[in-house]
Amino acid sequence: MILTVTPNPALDLTWRVDRLTVGATHRADAGAARAGGKGLNVARVAHAQGASTLALTTAGGRTGIAFSAEIAASGVPHRVVPVAAATRQSVAIVDEELGDTTIINERGVNPTDPEWAALFGEVVDALPSARVLVISGSLPPGAPESFVPLLIGTARDAGVPTIVDTSGAALVRAADAGASVLKPNAAELVEATGIADPVDGARSLIARGAELVLLSLGADGMLAVTASDVLHARLDAPLAGNPTGAGDAGVAACAVLYADGVRDPETVLRRATAWSAAAVLMPLAGEISDDWRTLGGRLVVAPHTSTLREDSP
Amino acid sequence: MILTVTPNPALDLTWRVDRLTVGATHRADAGAARAGGKGLNVARVAHAQGASTLALTTAGGRTGIAFSAEIAASGVPHRVVPVAAATRQSVAIVDEELGDTTIINERGVNPTDPEWAALFGEVVDALPSARVLVISGSLPPGAPESFVPLLIGTARDAGVPTIVDTSGAALVRAADAGASVLKPNAAELVEATGIADPVDGARSLIARGAELVLLSLGADGMLAVTASDVLHARLDAPLAGNPTGAGDAGVAACAVLYADGVRDPETVLRRATAWSAAAVLMPLAGEISDDWRTLGGRLVVAPHTSTLREDSP
Repeated sequence: MILTVTPNPALDLTWRVDRLTVGATHRADAGAARAGGKGLNVARVAHAQGASTLALTTAGGRTGIAFSAEIAASGVPHRVVPVAAATRQSVAIVDEELGDTTIINERGVNPTDPEWAALFGEVVDALPSARVLVISGSLPPGAPESFVPLLIGTARDAGVPTIVDTSGAALVRAADAGASVLKPNAAELVEATGIADPVDGARSLIARGAELVLLSLGADGMLAVTASDVLHARLDAPLAGNPTGAGDAGVAACAVLYADGVRDPETVLRRATAWSAAAVLMPLAGEISDDWRTLGGRLVVAPHTSTLREDSP
Repeated sequence: MILTVTPNPALDLTWRVDRLTVGATHRADAGAARAGGKGLNVARVAHAQGASTLALTTAGGRTGIAFSAEIAASGVPHRVVPVAAATRQSVAIVDEELGDTTIINERGVNPTDPEWAALFGEVVDALPSARVLVISGSLPPGAPESFVPLLIGTARDAGVPTIVDTSGAALVRAADAGASVLKPNAAELVEATGIADPVDGARSLIARGAELVLLSLGADGMLAVTASDVLHARLDAPLAGNPTGAGDAGVAACAVLYADGVRDPETVLRRATAWSAAAVLMPLAGEISDDWRTLGGRLVVAPHTSTLREDSP
């Protein structure tokens, strides 16, 4: 079973406006609210592809009611730890005229210590059945620094590998704690490590203790960085679509392979890049196109040589 | 008692971002959620100034829970008709770097016929104690065309004058139904009447049956248009501040005077302009500065002569 933890979930709203103009007042048509957060997207994708999954997260307040109802309706197996503070909201404002999407994510409210302990307890309870642990998404401001390292260490003690997709200091702490896989994008890597070249940054995380860094590069595909190699996978031609959730689909691919005991970096890189691309073809995060095998056949995979620019997506 | 009806309330959120960029992803600090809608703002201002008020509106869904809790905490007397659909949300995105505020209002969901009937029933129950009825704000898409005229007619039968602050076809229907006062801004007036000159547009609403049109002009103050006169009031110098809710404060001033039996257009115009200006000095809609009497002393009031531009705010 793939166990995912989402420490800072969000109720995702989509609002459509004719044209978004800074400083103006707009009328919006509201789409359906959806339970969001990277770990939930990972679980949705893996579950839809037939994997056994369990998504752990928190919910609270009026937004938590809608969040819990939507995740229950989705059919994705889950456990929700009740918290006092309201689940944050995230709004995607879609400009119908230009097609731009502007995203505003509330930062989220830090759970109390007993609430963190309850979430940790759910992980401990579920670990004996888990083949891989995925920790995905941001942490709310003020979150205990020990939370991610503690999860990684506890999973290791249970013989369960961990895949971590987060940013900032938590990404570096995950490397120090010996995460099996880290999945930053280039900007997150530069910001977290302070190293201008993302490949050097990825190598620094390997040196700290991570086994594999999957470095997502948007339309340029993905790198797999290990202690010995750097492989680059990309599609033979760019795809048009919605990049939201592409990284989560890559994490889901990695989780499915790790749960099956497959850890060969090239196999993981190929599947993660194909599922990321297949997510771009879908309108919502947490879904991938059934065409992912065709996309996998279009991958160009080669050892990486050149230096990356800091502003690679 | 001042009775206000808000047919399309909203849960108002304020989000602060460093810099709002169309097409980008932002992290927002969320402020407190507040029960919003123009009729509620009118009731808040009048209540804070010591008037007897009752605010009638609807609430539903997860947002309705927060809406009802906030209006209850505010201390403003109110009755909330429960509806099945969720109360809409409205978000003000404040750009901390430039100070711009970008507003996104969900359109709102039309109540069912029995829910409209329940709201109408609350008005009928409250009218015997009312000295003036205020109908403020937009109507949700698909709202029955008869709702505003029916309220105006029912109030007239009960000997209660009506003040209507709405837009589009509902504004014209309110004039046809013989509203005592209409409070459009210049853009709303041009859009509703199709007449390019706002003063001519206001006169057309008087010809249809309204007694007084208070035409708000933003920093240029306000006009009072009756069958015989057009008076212009403005401050001697512009004010810096937050114009959100300035129109509602003007309506509150008018309502307080009408509830006291004062209907002289110049007196109403002076108080409405002073309270509008006093709202600009406050950070939140639904509040006015205690300095409104000083601002009233700074008013320049004169018969209106020149033609207004269509783009006056």
